[in-house]
Amino acid sequence: MQHTTKRRRAALAFGAAVIVGAVALPGTAEAVAQLALNQHGGAARHQGDQTRNVRQAIQNAGAKNVILLIGDGMGDSEITVARNYQYGAAGRLPGLDALPMTGSYTTYSLVKSGENKGKPDYVTDSAASGSAWATGTKTYDGAISVDVDGKPQQSLLELAKANGYKTGDVSTAEIQDATPAVQVAHVGSRSCYGPDTAACGTDALQAGGLGSISEQLLNARPDVTLGGGSASFEQTAKAGQWEGKTLFEQADERGYQLVDDAAGLAAVRKADQRQPLLGLFTPGNFPTRYAPTTATVGGADAAPTRCTPNPARLDTGLSLASLTNKSIGLLQQKHGKKGFFLQVEGASIDKQDHAADACGQIGETIDFDEAVQAALAFAKKDGNTLVIATADHAHSSQIVDNTPPAALSTALVTADGTTMKVSYGTAAAGGSQQHTGTQVRIAAYGPGAANVVGLSDQTDTFFTIRDGLGLSEDVAALSRGARVDVSDRSPRRGERVTVTGSRFAGDRQVRVQLGETDLGTLDLVDGTAATTWRAERGTTTLTFTGVQTGKVATAQVRVR
Amino acid sequence: MQHTTKRRRAALAFGAAVIVGAVALPGTAEAVAQLALNQHGGAARHQGDQTRNVRQAIQNAGAKNVILLIGDGMGDSEITVARNYQYGAAGRLPGLDALPMTGSYTTYSLVKSGENKGKPDYVTDSAASGSAWATGTKTYDGAISVDVDGKPQQSLLELAKANGYKTGDVSTAEIQDATPAVQVAHVGSRSCYGPDTAACGTDALQAGGLGSISEQLLNARPDVTLGGGSASFEQTAKAGQWEGKTLFEQADERGYQLVDDAAGLAAVRKADQRQPLLGLFTPGNFPTRYAPTTATVGGADAAPTRCTPNPARLDTGLSLASLTNKSIGLLQQKHGKKGFFLQVEGASIDKQDHAADACGQIGETIDFDEAVQAALAFAKKDGNTLVIATADHAHSSQIVDNTPPAALSTALVTADGTTMKVSYGTAAAGGSQQHTGTQVRIAAYGPGAANVVGLSDQTDTFFTIRDGLGLSEDVAALSRGARVDVSDRSPRRGERVTVTGSRFAGDRQVRVQLGETDLGTLDLVDGTAATTWRAERGTTTLTFTGVQTGKVATAQVRVR
Repeated sequence: MQHTTKRRRAALAFGAAVIVGAVALPGTAEAVAQLALNQHGGAARHQGDQTRNVRQAIQNAGAKNVILLIGDGMGDSEITVARNYQYGAAGRLPGLDALPMTGSYTTYSLVKSGENKGKPDYVTDSAASGSAWATGTKTYDGAISVDVDGKPQQSLLELAKANGYKTGDVSTAEIQDATPAVQVAHVGSRSCYGPDTAACGTDALQAGGLGSISEQLLNARPDVTLGGGSASFEQTAKAGQWEGKTLFEQADERGYQLVDDAAGLAAVRKADQRQPLLGLFTPGNFPTRYAPTTATVGGADAAPTRCTPNPARLDTGLSLASLTNKSIGLLQQKHGKKGFFLQVEGASIDKQDHAADACGQIGETIDFDEAVQAALAFAKKDGNTLVIATADHAHSSQIVDNTPPAALSTALVTADGTTMKVSYGTAAAGGSQQHTGTQVRIAAYGPGAANVVGLSDQTDTFFTIRDGLGLSEDVAALSRGARVDVSDRSPRRGERVTVTGSRFAGDRQVRVQLGETDLGTLDLVDGTAATTWRAERGTTTLTFTGVQTGKVATAQVRVR
Repeated sequence: MQHTTKRRRAALAFGAAVIVGAVALPGTAEAVAQLALNQHGGAARHQGDQTRNVRQAIQNAGAKNVILLIGDGMGDSEITVARNYQYGAAGRLPGLDALPMTGSYTTYSLVKSGENKGKPDYVTDSAASGSAWATGTKTYDGAISVDVDGKPQQSLLELAKANGYKTGDVSTAEIQDATPAVQVAHVGSRSCYGPDTAACGTDALQAGGLGSISEQLLNARPDVTLGGGSASFEQTAKAGQWEGKTLFEQADERGYQLVDDAAGLAAVRKADQRQPLLGLFTPGNFPTRYAPTTATVGGADAAPTRCTPNPARLDTGLSLASLTNKSIGLLQQKHGKKGFFLQVEGASIDKQDHAADACGQIGETIDFDEAVQAALAFAKKDGNTLVIATADHAHSSQIVDNTPPAALSTALVTADGTTMKVSYGTAAAGGSQQHTGTQVRIAAYGPGAANVVGLSDQTDTFFTIRDGLGLSEDVAALSRGARVDVSDRSPRRGERVTVTGSRFAGDRQVRVQLGETDLGTLDLVDGTAATTWRAERGTTTLTFTGVQTGKVATAQVRVR
């Protein structure tokens, strides 16, 4: 017995190296296992004592880049369902299961109003959850990066940008969906997608608000934005500087590179503040990897089935892993420059769990895991990238032995060749299965990854990333040195003068007033915005006001 | 914003120290939080970067003592339900949440027979699960430390004992229940509790088997055994050396100290192989801490309730924490001597989850957490003890926002003063809610604790403990030096000679044949057993045979 155990341990040497040194290929874990599962030691995943591996996997905080991957609705149950199906119970998700630092975090949200305002709401939605890790502030279900009083809270993406990092926001959902939205927008209701959305209420531009999520996204101006949700960009601005134009027209005029298919994306070579990339590949959410299954009452008693590919799935050049790789390529900065913050969401684990669609949720988990693999492969090569993979909340699906009497269920044939029964018991057929309130897994690799170990709250993730990148939240200070320069301080009347506001690092836009002319707002590119002005008579004050910080910088021009 | 965050971080300094340096008192986390939950940083659990704390919490493997605590059915959902109720969503379970190293493990069992024999069964029972961590061998549901072919697999407790460690086995269940049983018995069916159990089949003594779980427990002879399940010990042995006597009589004759109440337990000062302690405090399982609640369809729409104490709860001197502390006190060894292996089970988290009894399961989780606190407090003081806390499988309970239409549910008022809805959707009213197959949390403190980080399988826990204590599985080798000595090699006929078998470290009993007299088996005390023999005429061979290893040692006596 001793002897065979030793053989097994030696045989697993490669498996152990995988954990700290390389990304495993699918099936690797199985390939190196020489003992059958029923033998002594045959099901063990580790090779001997892991203390040294774990110790070596701890790197001091302070990463150049951070990639935060969110599996929406990907609780431990959803992870296990996918592993069992795709790789077998003894198998290994080559992305998620390779992240060396692991822990749990709490996901509760807060009650919005009434006598319990501000107290815990034990089951969060994706909006409150995303707001929590994006801003470090707990809030109510439905809120997009505003606190329980509706006050905007700065997001990691905004702070990263203000602090000189490149930024990216990727999702398989509509880009206005809660998880991608929390990094770029601040609205009281998550359904405020575009200028046509009535639910925007006072957030609408025409109501004096910051605008819909889509419009705020254009202001946030990440270097890379990839996902679905083009429909909202066909809508027309109802107020403000771009009134009467569609959001696509606005994006185009503001310098965005717009792509809508794999070929277009492949052709993009560069994305930065001058030419940010906005790739929206579907009107709504991405189609799933696997065709849907329908859970029914008693359904798991039927003959078990296998998942089949979804014919409507997008080009694999648009898979979440491909989008992740493309984003990394566009965001990666040379040695000596600041790095990037990238958020990647696998959105439809949640959506298919809501629909009690086991194959749907499994395929999306596998897609998400491939994105984690992509991020991890880059991080290992780069050596200075923190990768965090977690969920925003858990969900309904449960693996059960017996077909439950009243819950919806499905039976699947797994990679093991045996039957797995998946149950959905929180809503009726046709209804939406519910999120659940359990703590969820968080796992990480790279500098600062040890911060996920133990029990944390999702708001801790904000601070881990903020402090890891060394982001200052004091954006006013970042714009403190802002100034306005003119190409000629004593122009002749009628001469065209170039007026440049610079060092507005804490701002994303500036309001520009040149004498009596109000130019509205300009996008700042790396803290700088320039325009031309035809010199008026006498002495004129040229004023740039940071939209986010309120910082005012002026220059005076005296016509000769 | 920056400023208040810093205040918060400074205020939490004590909280951070708690994680690595001391056991927190209930409410500590709340007491040090100065910001409200709705403020920026107000919900964060960490104080700044945790890298140094995590690094410092890693201790090289090689512990003197191991305490393995099993929360039966305590998945992440059950943990969160209990934390929310007892301490609030932002609160902290002072035991479980203080364990610094965390990860997940897989719990699947194997199919027993048929064409899928040996393939994964995605939802384990407590028997297969316990057998897996106790022996390092995956097996089928219902198996108690036998493999899929029914072959006995050595348990950690047996190996610890064979390797010179003291041992303990504690549970709030009947001591014959699966989790405590896997350390002391090997039967094909978990229901084989006592000599009267028909389900024992070929495992029964009268069928030539190893005997019922209760009878094998007496052979395993841990230094300390505490729990419920006295009923089976009232039964009478049907065969073998103790035929016709109750198991209590047998225990008494074999040197056990028997106690059945808190006063009796308190009076025990010493427990060792000569006088092992068997404390059975209830005929069946322990009563729970909280009175039961009954979940019903639509139940969570009723006015939320608070849990109330169960009047039938045992004396707090018999709480799981008290039993843990008592066991540690009795097992603790002086400097320079080998330490102990202790398993502690909180059994009724599972049992009350089966019953859709939210308050029942919560109280048992809190009780279990107090046992974890006790183990951790000892480990921190001792400095050379590995504490592992985990579950054998997850369970049905889910925290939901809305009352599910068909599942059973209950609404509770938590420590936050708000309502938590708990749903049970895997069985009908009156039925048994099911175990679920999700991976579960494993957490640890002390030398070798880093082995729980990442993804492991429950069988890895066997190897972590085996290797941490340096246990040899080659018990035959441990008895290799066995010998028989007599007080007089040349006695006169009729003289009483003391015959001593020693160094049978790998065995728990020896069969003794003295000339023509078959004495049956004797219990070995630290590898030694002695008896007296009246010398016969001529030359006589005195033979001791190790029951577990088959090792034969002899001495010859020649009558003068």
